[in-house]
Amino acid sequence: MLSNKRFLDLVGVEIPIIQAPMVGPRGHLTASVSAAGGLGSLACPALTPDQVLAEVAAIRQRTDKPFNLNFFCHVPEAPDAARERAWKQRLGSYYREFGLDPSAPISMANREPFGDAMCAVVEKLRPRVVSFHFGLPDERLLKRVRNAGCLVFSSATTVAEARWLDERGVDAVIAQGAEAGGHRGMFLVRSVASQVGTFALVPQVADAVRVPVIAAGAVADARGLVAAFALGASAVQIGTAYLLCPEAGISTPYLAALRAARDEDTAMTNVFTGKPARGLMNRAMRELGPMNQEVPVFPTAAVALQPLRTAAEAHGSGDFSPLWSGQAARLAREVGAADLTRQLWSEARQAGAGSPTAP
Amino acid sequence: MLSNKRFLDLVGVEIPIIQAPMVGPRGHLTASVSAAGGLGSLACPALTPDQVLAEVAAIRQRTDKPFNLNFFCHVPEAPDAARERAWKQRLGSYYREFGLDPSAPISMANREPFGDAMCAVVEKLRPRVVSFHFGLPDERLLKRVRNAGCLVFSSATTVAEARWLDERGVDAVIAQGAEAGGHRGMFLVRSVASQVGTFALVPQVADAVRVPVIAAGAVADARGLVAAFALGASAVQIGTAYLLCPEAGISTPYLAALRAARDEDTAMTNVFTGKPARGLMNRAMRELGPMNQEVPVFPTAAVALQPLRTAAEAHGSGDFSPLWSGQAARLAREVGAADLTRQLWSEARQAGAGSPTAP
Repeated sequence: MLSNKRFLDLVGVEIPIIQAPMVGPRGHLTASVSAAGGLGSLACPALTPDQVLAEVAAIRQRTDKPFNLNFFCHVPEAPDAARERAWKQRLGSYYREFGLDPSAPISMANREPFGDAMCAVVEKLRPRVVSFHFGLPDERLLKRVRNAGCLVFSSATTVAEARWLDERGVDAVIAQGAEAGGHRGMFLVRSVASQVGTFALVPQVADAVRVPVIAAGAVADARGLVAAFALGASAVQIGTAYLLCPEAGISTPYLAALRAARDEDTAMTNVFTGKPARGLMNRAMRELGPMNQEVPVFPTAAVALQPLRTAAEAHGSGDFSPLWSGQAARLAREVGAADLTRQLWSEARQAGAGSPTAP
Repeated sequence: MLSNKRFLDLVGVEIPIIQAPMVGPRGHLTASVSAAGGLGSLACPALTPDQVLAEVAAIRQRTDKPFNLNFFCHVPEAPDAARERAWKQRLGSYYREFGLDPSAPISMANREPFGDAMCAVVEKLRPRVVSFHFGLPDERLLKRVRNAGCLVFSSATTVAEARWLDERGVDAVIAQGAEAGGHRGMFLVRSVASQVGTFALVPQVADAVRVPVIAAGAVADARGLVAAFALGASAVQIGTAYLLCPEAGISTPYLAALRAARDEDTAMTNVFTGKPARGLMNRAMRELGPMNQEVPVFPTAAVALQPLRTAAEAHGSGDFSPLWSGQAARLAREVGAADLTRQLWSEARQAGAGSPTAP
């Protein structure tokens, strides 16, 4: 018996697999995973309240099972016009290469922190789970989320962050190992060099907190599920492997990069948004980073890169796109999200993860 | 059945735990682990042939069970006098702080690559296992080691390195995850930023090579053993946890630092030797690195720091010592090395790692 029922009892799902929230995929992926018995997630940081309402309506047409709405709760930093100008200048040669006008206005949906408007959406929709990245919103907003009947999850990249979340009453802690793709959930620590691997983080977090622990970072097949449970997790959160499902609907260059990805092809970078995130090494990361101290603050850095990304993608290139990926893309399989969810759980149980319904 | 017998059958030991070779601890630790049924290791890179002969004689007085002799096989880089002078200058303020004469000659046992003299020692001693770090020695030396009847292991930090080793006929590959303490075994890749976590590396290496895989990096308790076997390993290699055993005989400041270590307290650094290695963050790493592009080539960098290390340690400080540690020191327990070996295996079997003697 290597798994435990704590997560399943808490959330009321049948399979202890969370599809990680990822900016890009929409409710189609969420609904497929939830309908299959896992916990689907919808990443809301780049959506408007109306878009969230529409996505959730579509999810609920397909399933009445629990799902997760995810939000960023970073503390916005003051914009720094001089820094942004200097960065734009740094990108000047790329603008020229693509024949783009660097003075043209750029309109894009950037990542907003969780605020009153989204909180009202949550109160209206009452999803089973609301998860946060970069800590927690202020106590007033958090109380409203709890009063709406939602469970609250958040990510920790260190034991200290996990303890901080546990003390503030989260219902589960996502232990985000350094292998994970996308943004590091870091909110107390700043050093990328000290980020902790999944294998080290999960048992130390499990020892430190009272609530169930969700393992994230390089979990992509049944071996990973069994190992995560052995390390003390009650559930796993899987991102990269779901990106290869047709429901994720990612761009052609992104899909091609993931299909070709080797274990050593990712790095943490801040050049795409201003905060560290793991992605497949590409031209922007090689030439501008992967870490760059001159980058504008999060999430402003994404703005100046946006026209380059659009222009490159129009040529079928992911040179300037954030190709978020964990270190285990190679372990993924290209099947539908519902099949992936059920297959991983079935294989894990056969491999020794035990039946969660046994006493 | 999560473990498999491949490693046990290959080496002829009872417990699939290798005590990682670490410069510092001597044959006392090796013998304790081997006598208990695991595979003890002796790190030979900083020992003379005569010292190796003496240590092995002492080991063999205590046990006739298999043990491992470990060597570095880096390709020596040409010394660069200007670079070394500049580095000495960079350290000038520290020399003044400790009242040390920067022009005084420094004598120390530095890390030598495996060569003819050590190969003759191996041929004489015929240890069951010879393991290498930084790839493999040239084919001529390797043949002599094999002809002496020794099994050959080496470390891989990426799938590409694991494949390279497998193609050259090693008997087992040590998958060294990024969490591991001490020197990265990197020999094909150079980017520290792309180093792969244990959770991601072990299954991908297991898929890529024909030989048994040994998981290293943050394995420190029974949960780690079970997880490593689930990910596809046939054995684990444990370093940091053995440093807390009395047989390791490490310095007082080192022991104090390990006892206080949190998950987020380590980083990879090249300031101590010139090659990246994971250690507990201390003054030298904070003020000179943790990574520094001006450091002299491996292993020359260790020379100029040596007087500072000695002076600081005389004051009970580890400020200038390499405090090698993985990211899971917190999971270790302070017991004798034989007890640790037996306890971990017994607990892992109870937790579901299965009996390796069952069919």
